[in-house]
Amino acid sequence: MGNWKTIEGGVCAAQGFAAGGIHVGVKSHNTEKKDVALIVSETPCSAAAVYTTNAVKAAHIHVDKAHLANGIARAAFVNSGNANACAPNGEQHAETICAAVAKAVGCAAEDVICAATGVIGQELNVGVIVSGIPALYASVSAAPEGSDAAAHAIMTTDTRKKELALETKIGGKTVRVGGITKGSGMIHPNMGTMLCFVTTDCAISPEMIREALLETVKVSFNRISVDGDTSTNDTFCVMANGLAGNPEITEKNADYAAFVEALKAVCIPLAIAMASDGEGAKHLITCEVTGAASEGSAEAIAKAVISSTLTKAAIFGADANWGRVLCAMGYSGEQFDPDKVDVGFASAAGEIPVCAAGRGIAFDEDLAKKILTEHDVVIRIAMGEGASACTCWGCDITYEYIRINGDYRT
Amino acid sequence: MGNWKTIEGGVCAAQGFAAGGIHVGVKSHNTEKKDVALIVSETPCSAAAVYTTNAVKAAHIHVDKAHLANGIARAAFVNSGNANACAPNGEQHAETICAAVAKAVGCAAEDVICAATGVIGQELNVGVIVSGIPALYASVSAAPEGSDAAAHAIMTTDTRKKELALETKIGGKTVRVGGITKGSGMIHPNMGTMLCFVTTDCAISPEMIREALLETVKVSFNRISVDGDTSTNDTFCVMANGLAGNPEITEKNADYAAFVEALKAVCIPLAIAMASDGEGAKHLITCEVTGAASEGSAEAIAKAVISSTLTKAAIFGADANWGRVLCAMGYSGEQFDPDKVDVGFASAAGEIPVCAAGRGIAFDEDLAKKILTEHDVVIRIAMGEGASACTCWGCDITYEYIRINGDYRT
Repeated sequence: MGNWKTIEGGVCAAQGFAAGGIHVGVKSHNTEKKDVALIVSETPCSAAAVYTTNAVKAAHIHVDKAHLANGIARAAFVNSGNANACAPNGEQHAETICAAVAKAVGCAAEDVICAATGVIGQELNVGVIVSGIPALYASVSAAPEGSDAAAHAIMTTDTRKKELALETKIGGKTVRVGGITKGSGMIHPNMGTMLCFVTTDCAISPEMIREALLETVKVSFNRISVDGDTSTNDTFCVMANGLAGNPEITEKNADYAAFVEALKAVCIPLAIAMASDGEGAKHLITCEVTGAASEGSAEAIAKAVISSTLTKAAIFGADANWGRVLCAMGYSGEQFDPDKVDVGFASAAGEIPVCAAGRGIAFDEDLAKKILTEHDVVIRIAMGEGASACTCWGCDITYEYIRINGDYRT
Repeated sequence: MGNWKTIEGGVCAAQGFAAGGIHVGVKSHNTEKKDVALIVSETPCSAAAVYTTNAVKAAHIHVDKAHLANGIARAAFVNSGNANACAPNGEQHAETICAAVAKAVGCAAEDVICAATGVIGQELNVGVIVSGIPALYASVSAAPEGSDAAAHAIMTTDTRKKELALETKIGGKTVRVGGITKGSGMIHPNMGTMLCFVTTDCAISPEMIREALLETVKVSFNRISVDGDTSTNDTFCVMANGLAGNPEITEKNADYAAFVEALKAVCIPLAIAMASDGEGAKHLITCEVTGAASEGSAEAIAKAVISSTLTKAAIFGADANWGRVLCAMGYSGEQFDPDKVDVGFASAAGEIPVCAAGRGIAFDEDLAKKILTEHDVVIRIAMGEGASACTCWGCDITYEYIRINGDYRT
């Protein structure tokens, strides 16, 4: 492992950040559920975000792109329960929210970014949100409870909150990086992700925070899939307020490398947690591809495997149907020689090779069943083509996924 | 409708073709199920086939490509129960089967093509197949019962046999075209399809039959999806023995156009039947895209919608969640203005617009539920971009799909 240690506090771990989450009634029939979250920095932050590549984008994305044009932000607001995508007056409502948050925080509206997650196509009840912002701001706390409340407020069908923080040394100073995320369904990020907010007290320029974010998303959120559906709302944002007091990172030096390492160490586990908590999931599926011709090829193959509905159904049934793994590899678009491929399954219960040189080999079905009955299952693929590797994460598809998504709006 | 009429007889409708199907024990624990099929022409046929684009290909595909290099075939053999893909001695077994069929029929082994469908990765029990070929050949009949037996023998998890035949006039003669197909799961054809065999007594050259096949597959089997998984075994083959006595089609003239029209009239309904009988499906989903910038763009968008797991789950739940339709359109890779898109749902129970100019509109939820409860559901999308259109077909995703695929091998 890297040169850091895990700490408490999520997005409140870094100095100068506070967060909170309350219920205001975005989705009126679910009164117990926190539905708005706020993250605030005492001082202006270098900030950057990436968004969904979906051609249909939520309203907040257009607003955030404008607000982050200068690379500076103070606060991030999120509502769950309504995606504010393909909905009447979406951008206007997003701007209204940013203005209301700015008024509470005491900053310019352009220094506020906002995000939303939930049902697509219904007009946002902006009135209840704006009315609730003073109470939301009053609730923010720099204690771990603040991050906990925010992490809960951004959840939709997630069953577990997802937050993580760590500290490391950069430029002789202690730097903290922490994040919260939500995932669950419509998860197949592509150069963006579902909602993820990371805060840090590292001193780093807007240009370098953007570079660090792009490097990180490629190896974290872009390597997971729940259901192959790339959302309209995916947003991954990093805010760095510089209060750690390290020499500001303005180029790709050793400090930059240390920061990227820390950022990845927060985001990769959060991405895995998102895959593991995929809607209805009973298994986290890790696909490790080694011996590939290139990292890109390994990634495309691993992603095809974890995205394959048939492979996901086989893991749900603890069925060692490795033919589906080869089938998914084959339609990944990558060129390779199937006759060099080895496949095995592994978990805490053991490891079993099932295919050697592209051909089925006799294996102990009982052991295979035992291995695949574990929650965390690994599909190991050795390509025999080269020296590159990549790991991607997904989950199985279950009756529960279909139940949830057969009746999502009501 | 075109200038043809539907007739009985499937692949036996055309003059000079006979077919049959029996149980020999490919999958020993399922003794009731016919598992080998044979289609034979009295005389040599112009023949062509397309196959899966999956990089991992079943053994029969390599053998068939060699056997069809001269564009001539007499017989087609199929086994279900074992895909003969990624399995030991696959090509050798396929050649052994072709030789055994050739001996029974009295032709060269190179004039026999073979195909397989079933579990990937297990060695084919070639012994029981070869032993059974004399009985299989003895069972073939030119009566409709012959096609019926073959159509049943190629089924795997299909719940209904799929066959269709029609007759039309070409060059002053009556020409018949008939086909059988199997589908069900691992259905996301790409320049190939699942197993489909079409026979015709049309006189047409090997070059022109190949052209006609390529034109047809684009608008039939390549416009359906069950689960986004492109199989290792997809094979679509057309055999034309010329016994109708029409002037041989050797160029793209009016007779060629009439033949292609007839071939499409057989294959499009067979493709739709395959989508409708997708594993576990409770709904046939038709996505009609109009007003697109190009036919290619319309096709990519329609295919993204019918392939979207979330849209499929919403239709399963009869939930008019049109936001998922826009989301899928958005990640299709096509450029369009979401603010021009109209979406509606239709079925035998009525039609209801749910989105206009990219924004949700108020609609009667009870009527929407009633519309979506029908078996055949249509998603109508008007793009407002141009004058091109395309229709694709898929099915919903259900508990039953997961049950079937959670334990497919046993």
